[in-house]
Amino acid sequence: MTQTLSFIGLGAMGYRMAAHLPKNFTQVLVWNRTSNKAQAHAKQYGTQVATLEEAVQADIIFSCLPTSADVEALIKTLSIKSGAIWVDCTSGVPESAKKLKIELQEKGVSYLDAPVSGQTIGAENATLTFMVGGDPTAFKQALPAMQVLGKLIKHVGDSGSGFAVKAVNNMLMAVHLCAACEGASTLKSHGVNLQEAFECINASSGQSTVTSAVLPQRIFNRSFPDTFALSLLAKDTGIALDLVQSAKLSAPVIAASQSLIQAASNLVEHQSDFSNVAKMYEMFNKVTIE
Amino acid sequence: MTQTLSFIGLGAMGYRMAAHLPKNFTQVLVWNRTSNKAQAHAKQYGTQVATLEEAVQADIIFSCLPTSADVEALIKTLSIKSGAIWVDCTSGVPESAKKLKIELQEKGVSYLDAPVSGQTIGAENATLTFMVGGDPTAFKQALPAMQVLGKLIKHVGDSGSGFAVKAVNNMLMAVHLCAACEGASTLKSHGVNLQEAFECINASSGQSTVTSAVLPQRIFNRSFPDTFALSLLAKDTGIALDLVQSAKLSAPVIAASQSLIQAASNLVEHQSDFSNVAKMYEMFNKVTIE
Amino acid sequence: MTQTLSFIGLGAMGYRMAAHLPKNFTQVLVWNRTSNKAQAHAKQYGTQVATLEEAVQADIIFSCLPTSADVEALIKTLSIKSGAIWVDCTSGVPESAKKLKIELQEKGVSYLDAPVSGQTIGAENATLTFMVGGDPTAFKQALPAMQVLGKLIKHVGDSGSGFAVKAVNNMLMAVHLCAACEGASTLKSHGVNLQEAFECINASSGQSTVTSAVLPQRIFNRSFPDTFALSLLAKDTGIALDLVQSAKLSAPVIAASQSLIQAASNLVEHQSDFSNVAKMYEMFNKVTIE
Amino acid sequence: MTQTLSFIGLGAMGYRMAAHLPKNFTQVLVWNRTSNKAQAHAKQYGTQVATLEEAVQADIIFSCLPTSADVEALIKTLSIKSGAIWVDCTSGVPESAKKLKIELQEKGVSYLDAPVSGQTIGAENATLTFMVGGDPTAFKQALPAMQVLGKLIKHVGDSGSGFAVKAVNNMLMAVHLCAACEGASTLKSHGVNLQEAFECINASSGQSTVTSAVLPQRIFNRSFPDTFALSLLAKDTGIALDLVQSAKLSAPVIAASQSLIQAASNLVEHQSDFSNVAKMYEMFNKVTIE
Repeated sequence: MTQTLSFIGLGAMGYRMAAHLPKNFTQVLVWNRTSNKAQAHAKQYGTQVATLEEAVQADIIFSCLPTSADVEALIKTLSIKSGAIWVDCTSGVPESAKKLKIELQEKGVSYLDAPVSGQTIGAENATLTFMVGGDPTAFKQALPAMQVLGKLIKHVGDSGSGFAVKAVNNMLMAVHLCAACEGASTLKSHGVNLQEAFECINASSGQSTVTSAVLPQRIFNRSFPDTFALSLLAKDTGIALDLVQSAKLSAPVIAASQSLIQAASNLVEHQSDFSNVAKMYEMFNKVTIE
Repeated sequence: MTQTLSFIGLGAMGYRMAAHLPKNFTQVLVWNRTSNKAQAHAKQYGTQVATLEEAVQADIIFSCLPTSADVEALIKTLSIKSGAIWVDCTSGVPESAKKLKIELQEKGVSYLDAPVSGQTIGAENATLTFMVGGDPTAFKQALPAMQVLGKLIKHVGDSGSGFAVKAVNNMLMAVHLCAACEGASTLKSHGVNLQEAFECINASSGQSTVTSAVLPQRIFNRSFPDTFALSLLAKDTGIALDLVQSAKLSAPVIAASQSLIQAASNLVEHQSDFSNVAKMYEMFNKVTIE
Repeated sequence: MTQTLSFIGLGAMGYRMAAHLPKNFTQVLVWNRTSNKAQAHAKQYGTQVATLEEAVQADIIFSCLPTSADVEALIKTLSIKSGAIWVDCTSGVPESAKKLKIELQEKGVSYLDAPVSGQTIGAENATLTFMVGGDPTAFKQALPAMQVLGKLIKHVGDSGSGFAVKAVNNMLMAVHLCAACEGASTLKSHGVNLQEAFECINASSGQSTVTSAVLPQRIFNRSFPDTFALSLLAKDTGIALDLVQSAKLSAPVIAASQSLIQAASNLVEHQSDFSNVAKMYEMFNKVTIE
Repeated sequence: MTQTLSFIGLGAMGYRMAAHLPKNFTQVLVWNRTSNKAQAHAKQYGTQVATLEEAVQADIIFSCLPTSADVEALIKTLSIKSGAIWVDCTSGVPESAKKLKIELQEKGVSYLDAPVSGQTIGAENATLTFMVGGDPTAFKQALPAMQVLGKLIKHVGDSGSGFAVKAVNNMLMAVHLCAACEGASTLKSHGVNLQEAFECINASSGQSTVTSAVLPQRIFNRSFPDTFALSLLAKDTGIALDLVQSAKLSAPVIAASQSLIQAASNLVEHQSDFSNVAKMYEMFNKVTIE
């Protein structure tokens, strides 16, 4: 393709995502705060190390940073090429997306909030899901580049909608995680075999990705692998509850679960994997979930 | 097979389940409170109408009644054949299973709590899931008969364990339903396209059988088909919370959700489908979930 | 006293509050959006009708408006006298107080967030409680004027602290209201005499102003007098939950209760008295709380 | 008075209660599992040490034991005098009261569930509150004896009603405690002075016995005096939630709070004072409530 691309932020997700782009695009610039990561990436995948100023001269600019605050801080300092499309893959704040869309529009730049799901394994296999908010025309223009990285790419609404869907997705996951830990503790306390029980549940109406993947792969086997930090889940659920609040809605199950995730991120080591929510319940109930 | 079978209770589930048994078993007796249903079943599927007294002389006795109280009331009046195995497919109360196991044991009868999931479609296609509690030897003896009706058949623990797993499964489903309605209302309020949003969520960590099946097939399309009554879901979640209580556990998300299902069964017509929980949220938030 | 005073906003609270000021202060200007109310006030209590521009030339300017947004909109249009102290009795938003404090500081004006509790009866009897945030020196200067209107006047911290205390107070009241309705429904369902029961509770550790005043005076007697609208309680509890969220705290009981108040304000007529939360519970439980 | 009395169970409450009875009654028998306590009581207050068999020959038999299970176990072994009235001051289970009432009725004995509130200080000063369930005639006959011990003595309904009111009272207190800890943490996080803030709240609609007594006397001053164990509060709130469940009610705030108290009794030392719930919140939020 003739579009020029750049990728800003080569963390666990970004590093793997940017790796696929050279397959379909001739010029792929990469930038990272610590530049040796960018150099390693260029060597390994055929991308080109760029300064931040060079990176924002590309047609499509991907960013994948920890928070919306990081993206805002970066954009403030930059002269982005007019006509460029900024595809922000951060799990960010809807309000920030609306603000950035307007600010960048004034400079002739389109901003898409385009968070992804699928974790590092999805980034590696280019099977991510993109949930995208913003201008439909910009979405179409950025679609070929996103298709290199993901399998399901959806335009879900105006600016902020992408971030909103990601926040609600993670909030649902958090609710399911709390419920699964509570249900498993209950069954365990009554002497039920958890493995067999959840095989039944996973074939029934109570199934969730938490019961079919998180419980067996992270909790029952006591592995708690560090892939997605509890503190980030707390942040995302906070964004979801802010959406509930700003629309003046009643969402008691979401609200209570958000508080529990928040508590877990203080009770358990907050940089540890989100599956450690199980350990909070183990403290609550003196029952091991295995 | 040479075992003789009987099936007590030809409701929406039982009628369809009993229909498969004559394929593998020579003698299948059926009994129903209103006998014309039994007669229709015999004519349609080659089962035999029996009195209750005859039915409990079979080697394997299935029951599928509304509540544990119904099963207890029935058993009190009967002289069951010594050596028989009673397979109770009711969504019942764990405490009742423990009691019946002991009572029937004294008469030489084995009692298995063996609730099923999969709804009428699963009963029709013989793809039900059985979660079974009770004596492992009795389980093995009843297994061939259960295998005619189901796909996944699991022994999950002592008496009461089967009912416990079913109650927790339905409780998890109830939590997921509340969370999905809350999440969908939030996205809708912020102008997000719900269909596209939940396609993304269903490919992500927030997926549940509720988000992938209940939302699109019952709620978004406003069909609310009457297959599983809200009042029965309220009953099942009540059983789950009783399990939490009797083990003195902390399960805040389950506890809050149970209260909401209970409220919904009074706010909305309680004999209507469980998916009508969505209508309670629509009253809470003045947002239509579609 | 030689300070000149003005009072902006003669609603149910403001009208009664401003009535006391002429007792201790020579010049008391009053302003109201609909001016005939101001004229009636002047005639009845010896205050002076003023234009908004005149009102903000006083030494101490009281405001008592529905929301912080109203106060901000008003202030934007005005040239307030340098050296004046603005005492904002609105039940407002802490963030707004912080912003107004800084904005007015630049013009030499002090801003105090000074919400009151005690309802119209407290305003009438000059027994209000003032919870005040802002500069301690300004607090001392405005104290004599506040003392004419209230009995307990406390400086609780920096700008925004007054609004925060008011929001948390109303949030606690909302939690107590939900709990009292739930507890009363439970006792009623079990055949307990509610009047006698709550006399005991009011002499015990479960007492709250809700159980000792709201239940008997508004709910048990089915009077539900319109003094404080459910929609305003929903607004105040929303402010409290925003404080929880912005500090990234875990407050599950507050969070769940806020959702229930929000639901009630949609389920029941939202302009009706806050005590109508009881009617939501009556719909939930089909039990009358009397 | 000519009635003969006995007091079974001289714990922290019972020891102080029984001390008042000799003032108005000639014969007061006392029994305690460890008899040296009974001997000390007799010496100190002029009561008479008795065997259990002697004690149940009195006209009015008070009991004050840890749980209903203890009372049931004791009663099973005894031949109580026909015509006697058993006044059970235990904080017990309503279902147990209904059962004991029927069992004792067959022996000509009246059973009153008569739990008290007011703590050890109320027992010492004879200012307890009695909430009594059972036969109204028996209530009248036992009233003079209860009046020696308490200030407010109320007949609240049939057997079990007294225990129900006590359980709901303690449940409300538990909700208020959670809410107060959450509210205080929120204000503290925003830099508000807690002492001043709660002086305002205690003069306003958000007041509860928790905010006016528990917060300042047990939590803010970090004294956490051991007077009422967290594990007993967990037990009582469990009884309250069982009442909610058995009546099939929706009580989301009670349900969520019960789970939190249950969690606290495992997270914090469960034999410590109930005010240690504050320490759970301090772990949740990393904010000290003082």
